[in-house]
Amino acid sequence: MTYYMPTKIYEQEECIAAHAAELAALGKKALLVTGRRSAKLNGAEADVVAALEQEGVRHALFDEVEENPSIETIMKARDFAVKEGCDFFIGIGGGSPMDAAKAISLMAKNSDKGVDFLFGEDPSAQWYPVVAVPTTCGTGSEVTGISVLTIHEQKTKGSIPYRIFPELALLDAKYLKKAPAGVLRNTAMDALCHLSESYINAGANDFSRMCALAGLEAWSRSKAFLEDPTAVPEEETLRNMLKASTLGGMAIAQTGTSLPHGMSYGLTYFMGVAHGRACGQFQAGYLAEADPADAEVVVKTAGFQSIEDLNDFFGKACGVVEIPEETLDAIIGQLVANESKLKSAPFPVDSNVLRRIATYNQ
Amino acid sequence: MTYYMPTKIYEQEECIAAHAAELAALGKKALLVTGRRSAKLNGAEADVVAALEQEGVRHALFDEVEENPSIETIMKARDFAVKEGCDFFIGIGGGSPMDAAKAISLMAKNSDKGVDFLFGEDPSAQWYPVVAVPTTCGTGSEVTGISVLTIHEQKTKGSIPYRIFPELALLDAKYLKKAPAGVLRNTAMDALCHLSESYINAGANDFSRMCALAGLEAWSRSKAFLEDPTAVPEEETLRNMLKASTLGGMAIAQTGTSLPHGMSYGLTYFMGVAHGRACGQFQAGYLAEADPADAEVVVKTAGFQSIEDLNDFFGKACGVVEIPEETLDAIIGQLVANESKLKSAPFPVDSNVLRRIATYNQ
Repeated sequence: MTYYMPTKIYEQEECIAAHAAELAALGKKALLVTGRRSAKLNGAEADVVAALEQEGVRHALFDEVEENPSIETIMKARDFAVKEGCDFFIGIGGGSPMDAAKAISLMAKNSDKGVDFLFGEDPSAQWYPVVAVPTTCGTGSEVTGISVLTIHEQKTKGSIPYRIFPELALLDAKYLKKAPAGVLRNTAMDALCHLSESYINAGANDFSRMCALAGLEAWSRSKAFLEDPTAVPEEETLRNMLKASTLGGMAIAQTGTSLPHGMSYGLTYFMGVAHGRACGQFQAGYLAEADPADAEVVVKTAGFQSIEDLNDFFGKACGVVEIPEETLDAIIGQLVANESKLKSAPFPVDSNVLRRIATYNQ
Repeated sequence: MTYYMPTKIYEQEECIAAHAAELAALGKKALLVTGRRSAKLNGAEADVVAALEQEGVRHALFDEVEENPSIETIMKARDFAVKEGCDFFIGIGGGSPMDAAKAISLMAKNSDKGVDFLFGEDPSAQWYPVVAVPTTCGTGSEVTGISVLTIHEQKTKGSIPYRIFPELALLDAKYLKKAPAGVLRNTAMDALCHLSESYINAGANDFSRMCALAGLEAWSRSKAFLEDPTAVPEEETLRNMLKASTLGGMAIAQTGTSLPHGMSYGLTYFMGVAHGRACGQFQAGYLAEADPADAEVVVKTAGFQSIEDLNDFFGKACGVVEIPEETLDAIIGQLVANESKLKSAPFPVDSNVLRRIATYNQ
């Protein structure tokens, strides 16, 4: 595919209130899908509830999505959604609630199906409408069809095979103001990784690279605050970082991510490292294996002097993780079995290459 | 709206054959909508027929779309489509057949409605799926919801108020090889105008400008052949110009066009000037009224030294039209009544401004 991203994006102040009617028109009863706390703290949940109530549309709340949501959580939420009669799904938060909302929508629409259906690749599968309200600046899930879930059986995470694009992405940077500094740092690093791994990708084309470059430029304009733990970012900075994150989503909606994301899943699973930090850990190593001209475009457009400079920035912003040898082996072993991720690299990959990437900053 | 472009774009060699199954899955019987000759000469019609027959999907042909299609043509084609039982519509050609296919689809789905429905703005209106196969490099209609028709009653052209995005845009530059040099020049000029009028537009935002800039860069890489009437463009040049045109469509899908397009409609109606040439006629004058920094971005990214340089290029490629005083008055009078076009300019507009734009190169 050359380009496909059917989500309608609105990005503005008081975005949810401004588009209440369009939001409410998507169904008769909404399930709000959130984590336990952040959507309450940042006001996004209340804004969505107010919009729905103003339009006279009913709603229920599932606020039990954990970071890196598990299949078990999806199935629990599905049962709740079916009992409540929900026919559209609003994911509010970072990637976890938005990815979960997509998977819950799929399973609620196919309420007679068991858990195997989630990874079953039924080409005629349908789902209910999904809306995404991002409150971090990393995932881009608001403009992708991607839903990544934790698969305990395989001790890792994986994307479900369906492409469930939200109908609406409602972007309001005010929600980022309440995000902890560490969450902003980790999610902004995730956005950088999406932009980099999409630009340097076997599936890249002029359309995906257009999005990646525009995102890297926006990212570069906002990155300064990530290095300073005491910095309080201005609203314009957050707005810009949110835009970079959405452009990263538009880019990976075309190409998918690549090896660093594939390695990050194990690092998160085995060591509990936050997703953006886990992806950032392998980014410099990935860039070092890529065509030097392409790597330079990524590095320079993101505002760095060199791959080393980018890696130093990562170390200051997120901190390099020391990975024990047996964990490295497990991570590399998982990736060697992940054919689609291996194919996404625009250079030949074997376990030596993977080890060089994984140990670049060790 | 910040960004919305739901069409799935495929761009590759032998694109129609490669996506025959996806094309054929859109309905039970297709109406091919073409002009009288070009879709036969360039092979696109035959490729679509072959793809549909391979997939066992029936089809009918309406090959009577004139340049700047009239409402009368739409209604004639609608009656034919209803009689034939067509439930999806494939526009093949330049902007005229693609725009016509959208309007015919709308009227066929609403077969009990009269001609007033075309400009009636029914928010619940539905239409049949549309597919677009561009065979020129200007309109961008393959990735917009826009359908511009000739309205003889008003002695001009106008967009219908519905936003009918194609489901699929199938791009193969081989069809451009058979286009007459004059058609390539005029349509490439149209693409430049889309990119310029979208970049310099009250509705421009980071997303639309990303598309406009990427399109201007692609356009700049291919423009050399337009100045030389004897040049035979290479396939890569045509591929690039087609991409510029599609990116121009993605840009105007967000912003619409602006004053030069608004003026061009009358110039085409009264003097029979080809669409791209008519838009190009007013482009330098429009840029001269814009914020100089914005105008410079457009001019330089398109590969020109200055607005004057762009205007000289237009003169060589298409030829400046001498417009009689009474025609100028009529064109300006029409635009003064076109509120949405006036609002699209990012600077104050009165009849003096419009006259300066219209007479810049007279």
